[in-house]
Amino acid sequence: MDQALDEDHPLDDRRMEAVQAALEAGDGVTLSVLLEPLHAADIADLLEQIGPSGRRDLLALWSPQMDGDILSELDESIREEVIAALPPEVLAEAVRDLETDDVVDLLEDLEEPQQEAILDALDVSDRAAVEQALTWPEHSAGRLMQREVVMAPQDWTVGQAIDFLRGAEDLPDQFYHVILVDARMKPKGYVTLGRILSARRDMALRDIVEDSFRTVAATDEEADVAYIFNQYHLISCPVVDENDRLVGVITIDDAMAVLDEEHEEDMLRLAGVGDDSNLSDGPFETAKVRLPWLVANLATASLSAFVISRFEATITQLVVLAALMPIVASTGGIAGTQALAVSVRALATRDLTRANTRRVVLRELGAGFLNGLGLAIILGLAGALIFGSPLLGAVLAGAMIVNQIVAALGGVLVPLTLDRLGLDPALASGTFVTTLTDVMGFFAFLGLATVFLI
Amino acid sequence: MDQALDEDHPLDDRRMEAVQAALEAGDGVTLSVLLEPLHAADIADLLEQIGPSGRRDLLALWSPQMDGDILSELDESIREEVIAALPPEVLAEAVRDLETDDVVDLLEDLEEPQQEAILDALDVSDRAAVEQALTWPEHSAGRLMQREVVMAPQDWTVGQAIDFLRGAEDLPDQFYHVILVDARMKPKGYVTLGRILSARRDMALRDIVEDSFRTVAATDEEADVAYIFNQYHLISCPVVDENDRLVGVITIDDAMAVLDEEHEEDMLRLAGVGDDSNLSDGPFETAKVRLPWLVANLATASLSAFVISRFEATITQLVVLAALMPIVASTGGIAGTQALAVSVRALATRDLTRANTRRVVLRELGAGFLNGLGLAIILGLAGALIFGSPLLGAVLAGAMIVNQIVAALGGVLVPLTLDRLGLDPALASGTFVTTLTDVMGFFAFLGLATVFLI
Repeated sequence: MDQALDEDHPLDDRRMEAVQAALEAGDGVTLSVLLEPLHAADIADLLEQIGPSGRRDLLALWSPQMDGDILSELDESIREEVIAALPPEVLAEAVRDLETDDVVDLLEDLEEPQQEAILDALDVSDRAAVEQALTWPEHSAGRLMQREVVMAPQDWTVGQAIDFLRGAEDLPDQFYHVILVDARMKPKGYVTLGRILSARRDMALRDIVEDSFRTVAATDEEADVAYIFNQYHLISCPVVDENDRLVGVITIDDAMAVLDEEHEEDMLRLAGVGDDSNLSDGPFETAKVRLPWLVANLATASLSAFVISRFEATITQLVVLAALMPIVASTGGIAGTQALAVSVRALATRDLTRANTRRVVLRELGAGFLNGLGLAIILGLAGALIFGSPLLGAVLAGAMIVNQIVAALGGVLVPLTLDRLGLDPALASGTFVTTLTDVMGFFAFLGLATVFLI
Repeated sequence: MDQALDEDHPLDDRRMEAVQAALEAGDGVTLSVLLEPLHAADIADLLEQIGPSGRRDLLALWSPQMDGDILSELDESIREEVIAALPPEVLAEAVRDLETDDVVDLLEDLEEPQQEAILDALDVSDRAAVEQALTWPEHSAGRLMQREVVMAPQDWTVGQAIDFLRGAEDLPDQFYHVILVDARMKPKGYVTLGRILSARRDMALRDIVEDSFRTVAATDEEADVAYIFNQYHLISCPVVDENDRLVGVITIDDAMAVLDEEHEEDMLRLAGVGDDSNLSDGPFETAKVRLPWLVANLATASLSAFVISRFEATITQLVVLAALMPIVASTGGIAGTQALAVSVRALATRDLTRANTRRVVLRELGAGFLNGLGLAIILGLAGALIFGSPLLGAVLAGAMIVNQIVAALGGVLVPLTLDRLGLDPALASGTFVTTLTDVMGFFAFLGLATVFLI
């Protein structure tokens, strides 16, 4: 049966349909057979995709097999629901298998009583470790790190390190470096396991450390940690406390997950969608998350309406203006969105810095003018020919140039300003910029028309 | 000097200003001192940030110190320019230090003569390896992988593996697993170095392999490879050819870079910006990359103008309609963009599948209706009160509900359709969706107004 299913797409239609059928039939045995070959991450995706009622049925039939890895992989927004549905003994069993950093990740977003239930399931030392980790700020390196660290005194040899590793009881599941520390537990460098394995036993560890070595502070933001991993191709990175002492280590798989979440946040915020939206939400939750920016836009769009209303006399005399005005506004919106996406991305990758702000802003200004000119020629000629009025063409062209420049400047200055104010540059910049281009588009076009055509 | 500079922000204002000053003074010694402590990735960023003329000056003063890692880190769009500015012997020296996968990455986007210059600099075996890699399709796992693989026969013991590693001449810089292969070179599992180090020498490798083991095909798309790394928390992954034989290995740092590029692509495409745009482009290149979608939008916006022009008689009778119509259109645009961002993201993370398409589309329909209702109540009441016309309020409200539903459906159906057609769901979906919401917004509002108000 497994071989017939496509290994590359574990959640393909056939398996999903088979799962649905097993759920409807209440057939727990078939369900177990279907889920057995799946990775925890795929079972978590499946739980997200089958919706609330499917989840209820699945958990009722299958929950004794739920393990900690699946809970870790679940999207935060449905984790709470799933945990609430699990019998306490299943939850306790699932949580005990996890490394402490995964327990921390699991706990952070839960309500108090659920947190307590999970903490109670842990043994004393794990519980202490988790509670310690929770004292670091949210979204910090301290929350992200694992506390199980493989380290060695900086004056050891390869042979000493190998003997130590071979005798060690409780090594982490995944580790890629041995971190060298001094007598005060300050990290001084690290050695890859590959190098330890290929070096002679009498080689000093400090002679085979990696050239480039960095640490992060436990209070650093996890987004900055993800940036450092991506920028410097790190595989793991020691974490230090305020006295520069080693307190944990972050591995690249966790940093990659953070990078992915940051991207999601940027993309959704830019579009004016709240962060806590999830694909398994129903229509009500979905509507609720999106409504605030729609209402905000209602207010800003009223500004456009107000600007247009000031030109009602002009429109009454030349009603074709009402039909043409959205062209200038809409093209400005697209240009603003383009400049905005480029700027938000450049801020996220730290390519837009104080050092090149001036050049980038001037570049946007230049590009806005050039595209304004290009669009003005096309639209101006079309307007002049279609309506037989060179003056109308000129008004369209002039308004287009003005609005393209405004769009380009707005697209770069709005996120830059938010960033300088310490706010997220992606935060609803889209609404600001399109309001700006709408208002300016209508004002420039109707204003020029009033002066030259009426 | 180095200590005074902030290590966490290697390209801070002070260093950038000092670099600029050294460039203007033509002071190569100070320049070397300033660049010496920087990581290759930061020097590459610096080259991107100082613009074309700064780059020319810097390379003239400093190019003998250029190394292969810096070239690897450079953004593709300026790599060609930098390579062209390097003296042939510097280029040859720089390239010889690189691993073959980095040489491949460097070569792919260059023109023929530059490719030849780099290939000529390599020794015979490296050149053969690079040319072999280039036979795999662009953006495939075969291009991304490194060909240097650490492997062992599947019946070896830990002791045999350690002795082999200790005797090996030419191990890769970074490796985290030993891959077990059968007699036909088919990968059968892998063992982490941590486990090899901590196991007894007589332990069979096959008894300590990782539970979960996956391979990718050399022809797989690099985006799919990045997804698999992120989904299953892989650190490295063997690559096989069409006969399932081991041909290379991909490590997570390369997969993380691909994930980051894919995100950039999604964000920029969604906003209608071409992929080959770069922050160091001048105004002309910037304008050129963005103009196509602006011209396309000119055409689609003319559709809105055409729809409005059909209602000129209505507007002439009630000119306030011209002022109010953008509110309905603009709020629709925001709602469409929200649904679009959520859908494009869900397609990228494979959370939106055939199995839940129906539920997600119905959810969007529901959310669109609910938000339409909410906005209709606010706008309808405001319209009725401000203009003293309950009927005008009702027309605003009705148009709002219709357009919010259209926006929600368009936001999910446009990217889904592109995806089913095998196209990138992010590709300019923004332009499609906002055209749709503009046209429907104007049509619904003016249409209802013509029926009920005139």
